[in-house]
Amino acid sequence: MKGRLITLEGGEGAGKSTVLTALRERLAARGLDVVVTREPGGTPFSEAARALMLDPAYRGICAESELLLAFAARAQHVRELIVPALAAGRWVLSDRYTDASYAYQGGGRGQPLERIAALEAWAAPVQPDLTLLLDLPVAQGLARAGARGAADRIESEGAEFFERVRSAYRERAAQQPARFRIVDASQPVDVVRTAAIAHIDAFLDAAGVGA
Amino acid sequence: MKGRLITLEGGEGAGKSTVLTALRERLAARGLDVVVTREPGGTPFSEAARALMLDPAYRGICAESELLLAFAARAQHVRELIVPALAAGRWVLSDRYTDASYAYQGGGRGQPLERIAALEAWAAPVQPDLTLLLDLPVAQGLARAGARGAADRIESEGAEFFERVRSAYRERAAQQPARFRIVDASQPVDVVRTAAIAHIDAFLDAAGVGA
Repeated sequence: MKGRLITLEGGEGAGKSTVLTALRERLAARGLDVVVTREPGGTPFSEAARALMLDPAYRGICAESELLLAFAARAQHVRELIVPALAAGRWVLSDRYTDASYAYQGGGRGQPLERIAALEAWAAPVQPDLTLLLDLPVAQGLARAGARGAADRIESEGAEFFERVRSAYRERAAQQPARFRIVDASQPVDVVRTAAIAHIDAFLDAAGVGA
Repeated sequence: MKGRLITLEGGEGAGKSTVLTALRERLAARGLDVVVTREPGGTPFSEAARALMLDPAYRGICAESELLLAFAARAQHVRELIVPALAAGRWVLSDRYTDASYAYQGGGRGQPLERIAALEAWAAPVQPDLTLLLDLPVAQGLARAGARGAADRIESEGAEFFERVRSAYRERAAQQPARFRIVDASQPVDVVRTAAIAHIDAFLDAAGVGA
């Protein structure tokens, strides 16, 4: 049976790493073969593109280049990792995917959404089966993220940028309610984790999958 | 007065470097302020993208990623170097530009030409004023290039690939005769250089520019 693609989205300090670990364990506990990956990244080329994209040395990179580089990394990720894994019946759990381009390069950088959709159609035509959006107020997310130390090029943006990212994520979720589950990530981490696992359990139950 | 963008195109072993030097000297001798640049490259970010694109370690990179990466480098090159230079009245002489994507990623890799045109429209909307295509039979070009030693990822392709690149270049030139000048690069290098300079002189004379 073909696997599924589950993506985890959210802004800075939303707790994606903690939730990712919990989801991976839950999927494995239900007998599924799980591949954990991330964007930008997931293949050697895509990780090299990620390093280029996040390097603070390239602070002056234009929005067009950032968008194209994100999709250069993604096109390889889709073809080299995601499609073969799904075909082999594995479940792919990705820390960010195409919705992140709508949020960061679209909302954050102002690239037209039709431009992103056109790239998506030929560069990354695989749609997620389920997307968990960890949503929380920007100030709270930045306070958490700030505690982690050195920021990369995108993490160094200001609060207005992240407000636009958050709005774009919420708009995506509102437009595609069948695919998205919004988790209130302003809650304590244990509550966030439990809520995320409940969404995964419900998805697996509805799909008739796992023990 | 606004400057002009002159591009030099051609396959492997066509003698672009020799011609580039001759053209730079000719433009300078006619009193023009010349900026020499190249693609992929021309800015720190774009040069880093070039290194990624040509690295033999990423032999498995898909055609979509290669195309997107080429335009990621180009979008920055256009905005950071080409547009400001032209606005300052400088003449930009580029070793390859967008026609190379039509030839290499279009002809060579089979990416649809409409896809490349769509990227060009928003990522690199600056058109060259004059393009010199150094054209020669593939076998002759590869024999010359092979004498140079270690090949990068794209130089390592086979003759069929470069036949498609050559055909795509010639098709571009046939479609846009007002912009293109084809130089028979199978001739001895002195003859090629003289022919290229004659095209530049004619262009400058027609534009009423220079001494």
